[in-house]
Amino acid sequence: MSKEKQFVTEITPQQEDFSRWYIDVIKKADLMDYSPVRGCIVFRPDGYEIWEHIRDELDRRFKATGHRNAYFPMFIPESFFQKEKEHVEGFNPELPWVTEAGGEQLEEKLAIRPTSETMIGHMYSKWIQSYRDLPVLINQWANVVRWEKRTLPFLRTSEFLWQEGHTAHETEQEAREETMQMLKIYREFVEDYLAIPVIEGQKTPSEKFAGAVDTFSIEAMMKDGRAVQAGTSHYLGTNFAVAFDIKFLGRENEQEFVHTTSWGVSTRLIGSMIMVHGDDRGLALPPKVAPTQVIMIPIGPAKMREQVVGRANELFSELKQAGVRVRMDDRSDISPGWKFNEYEMRGVPVRLEIGPRDMENGVCVLVSRVTGEKRIVQQADLVEEVNRMLADVHQEMFERARSFRDEHFYSVETIDEMKAQMEEKRGFTLAGWCGSEACEKHVKDETGATSRNIPFDPQTTKTKCLVCGEDAKHTVVFARAY
Amino acid sequence: MSKEKQFVTEITPQQEDFSRWYIDVIKKADLMDYSPVRGCIVFRPDGYEIWEHIRDELDRRFKATGHRNAYFPMFIPESFFQKEKEHVEGFNPELPWVTEAGGEQLEEKLAIRPTSETMIGHMYSKWIQSYRDLPVLINQWANVVRWEKRTLPFLRTSEFLWQEGHTAHETEQEAREETMQMLKIYREFVEDYLAIPVIEGQKTPSEKFAGAVDTFSIEAMMKDGRAVQAGTSHYLGTNFAVAFDIKFLGRENEQEFVHTTSWGVSTRLIGSMIMVHGDDRGLALPPKVAPTQVIMIPIGPAKMREQVVGRANELFSELKQAGVRVRMDDRSDISPGWKFNEYEMRGVPVRLEIGPRDMENGVCVLVSRVTGEKRIVQQADLVEEVNRMLADVHQEMFERARSFRDEHFYSVETIDEMKAQMEEKRGFTLAGWCGSEACEKHVKDETGATSRNIPFDPQTTKTKCLVCGEDAKHTVVFARAY
Repeated sequence: MSKEKQFVTEITPQQEDFSRWYIDVIKKADLMDYSPVRGCIVFRPDGYEIWEHIRDELDRRFKATGHRNAYFPMFIPESFFQKEKEHVEGFNPELPWVTEAGGEQLEEKLAIRPTSETMIGHMYSKWIQSYRDLPVLINQWANVVRWEKRTLPFLRTSEFLWQEGHTAHETEQEAREETMQMLKIYREFVEDYLAIPVIEGQKTPSEKFAGAVDTFSIEAMMKDGRAVQAGTSHYLGTNFAVAFDIKFLGRENEQEFVHTTSWGVSTRLIGSMIMVHGDDRGLALPPKVAPTQVIMIPIGPAKMREQVVGRANELFSELKQAGVRVRMDDRSDISPGWKFNEYEMRGVPVRLEIGPRDMENGVCVLVSRVTGEKRIVQQADLVEEVNRMLADVHQEMFERARSFRDEHFYSVETIDEMKAQMEEKRGFTLAGWCGSEACEKHVKDETGATSRNIPFDPQTTKTKCLVCGEDAKHTVVFARAY
Repeated sequence: MSKEKQFVTEITPQQEDFSRWYIDVIKKADLMDYSPVRGCIVFRPDGYEIWEHIRDELDRRFKATGHRNAYFPMFIPESFFQKEKEHVEGFNPELPWVTEAGGEQLEEKLAIRPTSETMIGHMYSKWIQSYRDLPVLINQWANVVRWEKRTLPFLRTSEFLWQEGHTAHETEQEAREETMQMLKIYREFVEDYLAIPVIEGQKTPSEKFAGAVDTFSIEAMMKDGRAVQAGTSHYLGTNFAVAFDIKFLGRENEQEFVHTTSWGVSTRLIGSMIMVHGDDRGLALPPKVAPTQVIMIPIGPAKMREQVVGRANELFSELKQAGVRVRMDDRSDISPGWKFNEYEMRGVPVRLEIGPRDMENGVCVLVSRVTGEKRIVQQADLVEEVNRMLADVHQEMFERARSFRDEHFYSVETIDEMKAQMEEKRGFTLAGWCGSEACEKHVKDETGATSRNIPFDPQTTKTKCLVCGEDAKHTVVFARAY
């Protein structure tokens, strides 16, 4: 018991060292473990289950918009990377290479996919012949590898899990609509499911995907003020169509190149979610993806135990039947107080307490992980009350995250203002930008902040570039990012 | 249209060349395509969706028996393979190796997992300390690679998709129960979902998994009489526990090694299903995994078209609402006859025809892909009738497959009988075996047949070894296998 009791103090406070807090929490809550392979983690069952909930719901939304899943080889021949110049420059430094297989040296070495535009482009060129074959709307759930120098569990690992959508269209307009539709699906999903508010916008040219015409992103603010790019959607123009010869006979009987898009989110969503919602007590999991939504803890003296646990079991079955992900901790050798701390640390959204007096009164107690609010509810209405509290916890989490983001969202006119702000406060900074790569780079060199995106809805519009003072072409969100 | 019409004749008859029939069907039905990487295929949407249905249902059954999913790195350090001697000998020849990554030579080269006993064993040794941590019941859905010399789409590809369960237990008995439980889940699943009858049994020592104490399998018969090992479940004893030092403090306060199991099925189930049920008209998909369960084809003269399609759309919505995977082909420039052939080739279990006279009478016609049976059913009972026919199609497929298997199941006393039978007829052969590796090898050398398994329920028990004539230790199923 004494060993078990230590955990609360074992979590580094966020203010002391945010990175250490993060590692402490995800390890203690058994979401992941380090593996013996550099930069690769093991997703333990609670961590993986969060991904399953993310995947299932996104998959539902993709299918509802006409997409289907497929699976392409993870090996990509070296020559494929040479076909799209920007693409190879962007990804080459991060590729792992298979050079031997089956006891022989390979004639052409094979990369493990960092993303599949090239392989999928090659296949689309075989499948697409006529405008009647379009659009092609395919998504893939897969593992990908980018051999990163610096890694961080979930947020940046050598191997990670993701989905990558790849679509081909007859016209630019249709492809651009698809690009925007998928960005919208991402934004709505992270709001509805992960309770994360995000800023939608367009990446600057220096930050766009290697091979894209335009890249759009949703950007989330972590509790240390840094940004995470939570999802991206790319309009690829005809770049990959030209590189992989994806042509079709158009309505006017002429050969045309398709317009393609790609879009993806990955297991870094798990990391973002933790950094947005967690606190010094541990994880706080959004109810819709929490492996355990309700933890039931029977309380009261030993002599009443059997009776209380009996009633608790009935309520447990009722909740389970209703589709609530509920668990019971009825261990008698561990105190309720210890359990309360334990499941708060694990981020379980709602705790259900039931004791002898509650039994007599036909009630039980629901406690919110986020606000600590206690509700005494009728056992007869339990399913409804639990679902209500789960919805309230989600809403509360979203609003807290949005308030935090708004409080840490600053507006500056000059680079000096920005430097001063960055030194003192954590957060995002809105500023004008002339559009030159030099000014963008200057900001990065001086402050460590990169342009996150050019928001669709910047609230205020800046007129001067924060660096050179020339007319601003864009109003940009800058931040230090993971 | 003339080009479209050719497809029926483009399928090689099964009797002429079964392998060509197989490739013709899976390509024409758009289940897969060859990729530019040797031995790797692309799972196209209809092929991948079959896998999604397999995965979802198996996943449900795994979870119902207390298993949870996790995800481990696909890279396995070379040194890990050295730790279990049989394991390295079994898998080393088939491994692909990553030797460079991120622009540098790796200090230790990394295999792409062919299976994950080693990586998972390494992690379990960190997670398991006490008998209180047991059992550990984890499953992983993943891609794996075995660099095969000869490949065949779905049945044997370099990269394939599978699930691998890995469990650790306190006692041998518990681990053996788990091994048997999972084999049973596999058998029930392939019967209930894929309509494939299988023979459950134990592998002979020469055919067991590299590193296992005992391997159990389910074996299915293809329409060319060859066998496919459709699923395996292994009792690994303490082999991997010793190799990876997976110890726990037991109830008697002594350090003990865990007993582990592993079990898996893969995308080769898709190939088996096709080879068990398909015919010269093309695919025949078991209703529970068919991407399209019902194809609706409105028929009748052009002037009635709008009205018929209107009513068909209403029925379509009703079926969709009820959870039936239904598609409508209301193209007016393609004849119903062509469509009938097309969807038969694609293996859609039930065709729904509706014409002007049916509309008047409030009926429509359901046609079974397998028997050709036509049922005129009331539109008012459509959902019920469709579900009934889907269930009947499943049952009919299972019974046909079982009859075929029983008709091609022979019993022999001597190797000469077996040779004669193998030359004339395709199928499985039951024979006695003394237990010596020499006799088993002799059978293989003489007939090309390998021991599939020692069936739990052999129907008849053989008393003499078919090769040496000594007392038989086991009654064994022999067959040529994929």
